[in-house]
Amino acid sequence: MQMRHYAKPLNNLISQLSKLPGVGGKSAQRLAFHILSMEEKDASAIAEAIMDARRTMKYCSVCGNLTDVDPCGICTDTTRDQRIICTVESPKDVAAMERIREYRGLYHVLNGTISPLDGIGPEDINLKALIVRLQNSEVDEVILATNPNIEGEATAMYLSRLIKPSGIKVTRIAHGIPVGGDLEYTDEVTLSKAMDGRREL
Amino acid sequence: MQMRHYAKPLNNLISQLSKLPGVGGKSAQRLAFHILSMEEKDASAIAEAIMDARRTMKYCSVCGNLTDVDPCGICTDTTRDQRIICTVESPKDVAAMERIREYRGLYHVLNGTISPLDGIGPEDINLKALIVRLQNSEVDEVILATNPNIEGEATAMYLSRLIKPSGIKVTRIAHGIPVGGDLEYTDEVTLSKAMDGRREL
Repeated sequence: MQMRHYAKPLNNLISQLSKLPGVGGKSAQRLAFHILSMEEKDASAIAEAIMDARRTMKYCSVCGNLTDVDPCGICTDTTRDQRIICTVESPKDVAAMERIREYRGLYHVLNGTISPLDGIGPEDINLKALIVRLQNSEVDEVILATNPNIEGEATAMYLSRLIKPSGIKVTRIAHGIPVGGDLEYTDEVTLSKAMDGRREL
Repeated sequence: MQMRHYAKPLNNLISQLSKLPGVGGKSAQRLAFHILSMEEKDASAIAEAIMDARRTMKYCSVCGNLTDVDPCGICTDTTRDQRIICTVESPKDVAAMERIREYRGLYHVLNGTISPLDGIGPEDINLKALIVRLQNSEVDEVILATNPNIEGEATAMYLSRLIKPSGIKVTRIAHGIPVGGDLEYTDEVTLSKAMDGRREL
């Protein structure tokens, strides 16, 4: 999209915004005009929120979650069950898990998955820290909650083989037909997992 | 969408981004994580582009277009035809018009349309400046290029009645079937305008 018909600062704003994921030239233009039409303080608030988040957010040195204090609020929460660690791929998964308000253990965020095709090995994700954590702790269960896709399964398998010898219980979250789902439209792999995971009523 | 499971600076960034038009909770979250994963300089560039555009962009005191220099580059371009003014609703329309690379006259940006239902009268848009401009100039044609909707038509009608008595030629851009359009799927109003505007070949 041609944008040279705007003044330079506006062109620059449009081009910066269009670097964001899912923001094309047209959306970037719409966002830029909106930003110019906002109250001064509201526009500043966006710019400041970006700088502030960049300045303060870091990875928790214990669990790898995104946090503004290190160690993070979950790791330092003594009311949580210190004997269970739920291992997830990303901070978004921690947020998703917290939303169900049921799990009260700790987390470990891998910030990635093992993916040989992309050249990402076990040493490229936050995995070593988990092993160190398990050595000096009272943890007796590690839940593997990586996504049910090729990379997530491979990572879960790898972790399982790594941890099991230490005697710690390793569990994998259940795969199956989602609640509200339809047997007829469920893919074969999911259906097969649902059958494998069947439980006695 | 619940976001309290993230640290405060991240929550704040998500909530600031979700104030932008067309950016919902999920997109704001995706954008925020993307911003956190960007190179430091790229993230700063976005924040700086916002502040820079806010600081430098203003309305041209002559034509009302958005510009970083006042008067704007088009108003001060002496190679442009000073006898024609194309009146549009917004700076985006100037950019659209410039893109066709055919029009070499001047512009007047109303930055709105007359819309009694929304309480926007002639005095609320950049209209008086146009009249002043016409009084002390060599302009002999005013093209009304407001959008072909109720407000745009009303504004064009109002301007036409206001300017015509001065003897300046007032024209309206043509409405009709867009190039590549299909007669069968053209709405009645457009088709009727296309018939009204027919020309001898």
